[in-house]
Amino acid sequence: MSQLTGNLLVGQSGGPTAVINASVCGVVQEAFKHSCIQGIYGGMNGILGMLNEEIFDFRKEAPATIEGLKHTPAAGLGTCRYKLDFKKKAEKAAQDMDRLFQVFQAHNIRFFFYAGGNDSQDSSHKIHLEAVKRGWEMRVVGVPKTIDNDLPHTDHTPGYGSVIKYVCSTVMEVGLDVGSMATDDGSCCIIEVMGRSAGWIAAGAALAQRGNPDNPPQIILLPEVPFEREKFIEKVKSVVARNKYCIVVCGEGIKYPDGREVGADYTKVDDFGHPALAGASIKLKEIIEKDMSLKTRTVLLGYAQRAAAHYGSAIDAEESYACGVAATQAAVSGISGQMVKIVRTSSNPYTWTTGLQPLEDIANVEHFLPKDWIAADGFGVNEKFVEYAAPLIVGQTKVPEVNGLPGYVNLAKHKLAKVLPPRQ
Amino acid sequence: MSQLTGNLLVGQSGGPTAVINASVCGVVQEAFKHSCIQGIYGGMNGILGMLNEEIFDFRKEAPATIEGLKHTPAAGLGTCRYKLDFKKKAEKAAQDMDRLFQVFQAHNIRFFFYAGGNDSQDSSHKIHLEAVKRGWEMRVVGVPKTIDNDLPHTDHTPGYGSVIKYVCSTVMEVGLDVGSMATDDGSCCIIEVMGRSAGWIAAGAALAQRGNPDNPPQIILLPEVPFEREKFIEKVKSVVARNKYCIVVCGEGIKYPDGREVGADYTKVDDFGHPALAGASIKLKEIIEKDMSLKTRTVLLGYAQRAAAHYGSAIDAEESYACGVAATQAAVSGISGQMVKIVRTSSNPYTWTTGLQPLEDIANVEHFLPKDWIAADGFGVNEKFVEYAAPLIVGQTKVPEVNGLPGYVNLAKHKLAKVLPPRQ
Repeated sequence: MSQLTGNLLVGQSGGPTAVINASVCGVVQEAFKHSCIQGIYGGMNGILGMLNEEIFDFRKEAPATIEGLKHTPAAGLGTCRYKLDFKKKAEKAAQDMDRLFQVFQAHNIRFFFYAGGNDSQDSSHKIHLEAVKRGWEMRVVGVPKTIDNDLPHTDHTPGYGSVIKYVCSTVMEVGLDVGSMATDDGSCCIIEVMGRSAGWIAAGAALAQRGNPDNPPQIILLPEVPFEREKFIEKVKSVVARNKYCIVVCGEGIKYPDGREVGADYTKVDDFGHPALAGASIKLKEIIEKDMSLKTRTVLLGYAQRAAAHYGSAIDAEESYACGVAATQAAVSGISGQMVKIVRTSSNPYTWTTGLQPLEDIANVEHFLPKDWIAADGFGVNEKFVEYAAPLIVGQTKVPEVNGLPGYVNLAKHKLAKVLPPRQ
Repeated sequence: MSQLTGNLLVGQSGGPTAVINASVCGVVQEAFKHSCIQGIYGGMNGILGMLNEEIFDFRKEAPATIEGLKHTPAAGLGTCRYKLDFKKKAEKAAQDMDRLFQVFQAHNIRFFFYAGGNDSQDSSHKIHLEAVKRGWEMRVVGVPKTIDNDLPHTDHTPGYGSVIKYVCSTVMEVGLDVGSMATDDGSCCIIEVMGRSAGWIAAGAALAQRGNPDNPPQIILLPEVPFEREKFIEKVKSVVARNKYCIVVCGEGIKYPDGREVGADYTKVDDFGHPALAGASIKLKEIIEKDMSLKTRTVLLGYAQRAAAHYGSAIDAEESYACGVAATQAAVSGISGQMVKIVRTSSNPYTWTTGLQPLEDIANVEHFLPKDWIAADGFGVNEKFVEYAAPLIVGQTKVPEVNGLPGYVNLAKHKLAKVLPPRQ
């Protein structure tokens, strides 16, 4: 195969993580090593920005800024939730695809990398197929990313280790706090974490127990396990009787056996029939206070959990970076239409490498928590999960401190001159 | 003055902080140096445990555990919200005081230290007066503690620097996250922090701006400033027009001009006429979504903020420790009826020392944010606050990592044999 030469374009897509910038850093720093890669460009706000020719030049960034992406959370390039939806909006998707290739051709993009979750890998897959169809020689490699850990074929996803490390530290700290205030009256605290359909993040909180089921969180509510009010109340009662307090971690998407979301308020329905989302933790607090008269507080980590690079997992940042490096190496070696994945070669001691998986195997497939990793009583996970997840939180990302705060970087984003007419 | 000899008792009271254990560590490690101090005891759950003779022996703790208190959050001894309330429950308070002195005398307590906020300093003051009245020679020294920073006479309180350091890091990270997702549709995120009547914590979030008012949090809502819905919506609109997104930090206790709490739900009133507390962030989200149709998310840090030793302020931990050391030194030198305070000797460079203030000056006095530190438009603070608060977050507490999580310590708490009949 003759060596392809041209420019590189990397974009970020979907919800940010603490380490998605580390992957971009890997792509870019590796790209500097290959003479076949000329321009090294970043697309702003993923495909959405690329459609508008919003592209900037990494070669004009200070090397220290690029290096700083390793510890800077959120999407440094900007991100989007924009889908090439050929099913529901075929005409628009076809227009977008046309426009994308106009942009690629106008800027001689020959190496294309997209860091994201299921939807983003689907976009990469379609772009790859389109390039082949059009005869536009371009290497398309997906870079995995999502705190949700729900991509198939990869052992886990970059971003997951950091979010559960932060959640565990929060659970330990809130547990010490509530435990130190505990009286015979008992008390409860609900910590709500992300995870609408897959309970990976809630499950990860189990590492905070460090092998002792009396350690917080004494109860984990997974979206995979139907929420039964009576059974839950009994469990809280037994935990409080034993420990005087109870820490509950719940995934935001927990559901009643009939499929209704616990966090939804079905008394407030909008014009489309969708219930208002009150939040699972708020509803659980109401349930506990009503059924048990137990003082209950809530913690809603929200966006804070996925951006918490101040307490990021070092192994997660390292793997995220390696995924970026591997993507560039794969593309340079002629590979296209694949996603980089993390391959576990041993659990104890934990060793790993990167591999490749066809994008068509990834796109739109959701990877759920295995059923046999869920605890017998449904209120947590078992040792199989712990063995899997424990290595993912080891080490703490080093973040320089500037005046007492994390020294995160901002890309200067020197934009390329636009050469196309504005998008219609 | 003849040298007093006997046993030491230290207790913790009120809401925990990230550094209240550092103060206890200071008291105890300093006590080991003084031969006049024989037994070194900890009271469990503050006065509440002391009344039940729940006392343990620090001399039986491993030195490494005591040292580990420097970086372990929450109240390692256990805490309580128990008041010697001579105003409303005079008879019970008198009985409690009797019982306390029975305990002090039974265990020859001659050095008494209580780490806490306003109420706790009030308790210490009453115990001091009672000791004088009874002729029981005992040194009573208060140790300041509260994330709320609302104690008078001390420049600031141990615990405050750590909570605002963590809040600022969260604001920066959530800001990067929301900013990187921002589109022309705009978006908003409300971060609710503690502070029912004094806005010190919400104000502290201003340090995250690092001098640039376009940096998050672009809006801070202080409990000291009446919340005006129209004015707030206008402010959010202008911030979103400029930045495409807006991060709001609000103190939990923000109030409408008529005094009603923004976070209260007056449609749900209990038997005593108290409204249900829905939470200020939830209500602000409702307001923004209703008045502006702007996608809005919330973060409720709750207990997580006051226990976040994984990102504690090094200067805060150092000062907390020094307050404990100073308390023991003062008591050994014959001082009683005083609270240790932090005295700022220079702001730039920041230098400090400890001092003493009579407990009667502290008890039940609340220290509010000075009015001339509040921004002209009421949506934040000015440079006077920043100059004051900036030094308090410098440096990061070193916490050992154990299997990827903070290595916090647990006291073994070898209990003293009870010698009194059970409390009635």
